[in-house]
Amino acid sequence: MASHHPIMSKDELTGFLDREFPQIHEGGQTFFVDEIGPLRARMRMDYHDRHLRPGGTISGPSMMTLADLALYAAILAHIGPVALAVTTSLNFNFLRKPEPRALIADCRLLKLGKRLAVGEVSIFSEGSPDVVCHATGTYSIPNRR
Amino acid sequence: MASHHPIMSKDELTGFLDREFPQIHEGGQTFFVDEIGPLRARMRMDYHDRHLRPGGTISGPSMMTLADLALYAAILAHIGPVALAVTTSLNFNFLRKPEPRALIADCRLLKLGKRLAVGEVSIFSEGSPDVVCHATGTYSIPNRR
Amino acid sequence: MASHHPIMSKDELTGFLDREFPQIHEGGQTFFVDEIGPLRARMRMDYHDRHLRPGGTISGPSMMTLADLALYAAILAHIGPVALAVTTSLNFNFLRKPEPRALIADCRLLKLGKRLAVGEVSIFSEGSPDVVCHATGTYSIPNRR
Amino acid sequence: MASHHPIMSKDELTGFLDREFPQIHEGGQTFFVDEIGPLRARMRMDYHDRHLRPGGTISGPSMMTLADLALYAAILAHIGPVALAVTTSLNFNFLRKPEPRALIADCRLLKLGKRLAVGEVSIFSEGSPDVVCHATGTYSIPNRR
Repeated sequence: MASHHPIMSKDELTGFLDREFPQIHEGGQTFFVDEIGPLRARMRMDYHDRHLRPGGTISGPSMMTLADLALYAAILAHIGPVALAVTTSLNFNFLRKPEPRALIADCRLLKLGKRLAVGEVSIFSEGSPDVVCHATGTYSIPNRR
Repeated sequence: MASHHPIMSKDELTGFLDREFPQIHEGGQTFFVDEIGPLRARMRMDYHDRHLRPGGTISGPSMMTLADLALYAAILAHIGPVALAVTTSLNFNFLRKPEPRALIADCRLLKLGKRLAVGEVSIFSEGSPDVVCHATGTYSIPNRR
Repeated sequence: MASHHPIMSKDELTGFLDREFPQIHEGGQTFFVDEIGPLRARMRMDYHDRHLRPGGTISGPSMMTLADLALYAAILAHIGPVALAVTTSLNFNFLRKPEPRALIADCRLLKLGKRLAVGEVSIFSEGSPDVVCHATGTYSIPNRR
Repeated sequence: MASHHPIMSKDELTGFLDREFPQIHEGGQTFFVDEIGPLRARMRMDYHDRHLRPGGTISGPSMMTLADLALYAAILAHIGPVALAVTTSLNFNFLRKPEPRALIADCRLLKLGKRLAVGEVSIFSEGSPDVVCHATGTYSIPNRR
C-alpha cells in the first residue's frame, strides 16, 4: 500500500498540522516539523514556561505530546493529509530529566501497513546525544477508497 | 514499607498538587482530586477548548496528562508529599473517542514497593461505563531516610 | 459488532485451543480454560520444571505466554473459532516473583471492536490476592464476511 | 555507574547463561549470544517445531523470550554476572509474521543507571531487513556493595 517514500513535503505537513491542530500552538508556537525522510520524521519542540515542572525540567506530558505528534506527522507524510490515522496505543520510557532546552524527536516508522502503522520515537535535548524519552506507538489507518 | 492506606487526605493532596504544579491549571482550573482510598485515587478533568481536537473529541495528550496525574496522586497519597516519585514508564491504549464531557480517571495501585510503584488507570467519560483510555505506569520512588 | 456475551463454551474453547495449539502442552498439559463470562476469561497454568527460574520462581516468558493465551481465549470466546485474531501489541509489568504454584490469569476485554480488540490481564499465584504480573494487549481482527 | 563498555565477553556471557538458565535450551540448543558491544548485544534464536504456530510462523512467546533474554544479556554484559537484574516491564509490538527461519535480536541499551536499565530490541528474520517484532524493556538493578 503506502509507499516507503514521503508524499508530503515538510511545508505541506507544517501547513496541514497548523490548520488542523491550532491548539498545539496555543500560548506560543511550539512544535515544528524539522525534516521528513523515507519512513522518518523529525520534529522540534520549543518550550515555554507552561511546559516546565518543578526543578526546571520539561514535563512528561509535553514529551508525550511531542512523541505522538512526531509519529502522526511521519505517518501522514507517507499516506497523505486526507486519511486520518488514529492513535491506538502509546508506550513511553522516561530515561532522564530533560533540561530546559528545545527537544528533538526522531521518529522512525517500523511498519506502514494497510490498517496499522507502528513507529518508534527517540527524544533528545537539543545538542545532547542522550535519549531523554523513548516512545513506541501504533495507529489505526482508516479504509481508503 | 508504605502502608496500603492513604496518609494524605483529598484536601491535603489537592493543596499539594496546586502548589507544586500550578501549570496544570493554566488557562483555567482543570484537574481535581475526587476521592482517595486504599491503593486508589479518582481524579476528574474538566475540559476547555484547548483540550479538544477536530471532531470535538478530547485530545490524547489531555488523557495522558490526566492518567499520569492520577497515578502520581495515588502514589503521593500513600507515601506522603515529601518523597518525589518520578514517572519511569507509561503505557496507553486508546479505546474510544471521548466526547466533549468531563473525564474521570480511576487509578488502582498494583504495587507499592520500596523502590517502585506500579498502577493502572481507567478513564471514562462522566456518566458512561465505557473505558475510553486505559493506562499503566511505573514510578521510581527515591530513597527515604 | 461482536456481542458482549461469549458464543463459545469453556469446553468448545478448550477443544479449539488443544487442536490448534498442541505445542502449548508440549512436555505436559499446562494451560487450562477455567471460566468464560461476558467480556471475560480465566485461565490456569500448571507449572513444570521447565517453567522455573533460579530461586524457584516461575519464569517471565511463562507468564507472558499465559497472558497472551488468556487474551486470545477471551477474544475467541466472543467472536468464534473461525476468525483468527492476531496479537499486535502486549505490555507487561512484572510486580512480584511468583512462587512455584499454579498461576491464574483473569482477563477482561476493554474493547471488542470490528477491527481491534483490547484487554487486560491480571495474573495471580493460586490462593493469593496479589497480582504478580499485569498485562494489556491489542489484537487485530481480520475482516469477516 | 556502570561503564558503557561491556565487561563480559561473548564467551563468558554464553557460559553464564547456559549455567544459570539451562531451561532455555530444553528440547535443543536454541539461544546464542552472537555479539556484544558498547551498550549493545545481539542474540540469535534457532527454532524447533515447538516454536511454531499454525501457518508455520514462529510464536509470539518465542519472540518475547528472545527479546527478554537479549535485554538481560546486554545488561549483564555491562554490569557483570553477579548482580541479578530483574525484568520490571516489557512492551512488544508484533509487526510481521516471522517465517520459519532463525531470528536475530538486536538490543540497544538506552539507559544504564544505578537502579534502572532500559533498552530496546529489534527482532529480524535472518537475512531480512524488516523488523518482525520490536520490544522495549526496563530492568531493576539491585543494590551492589
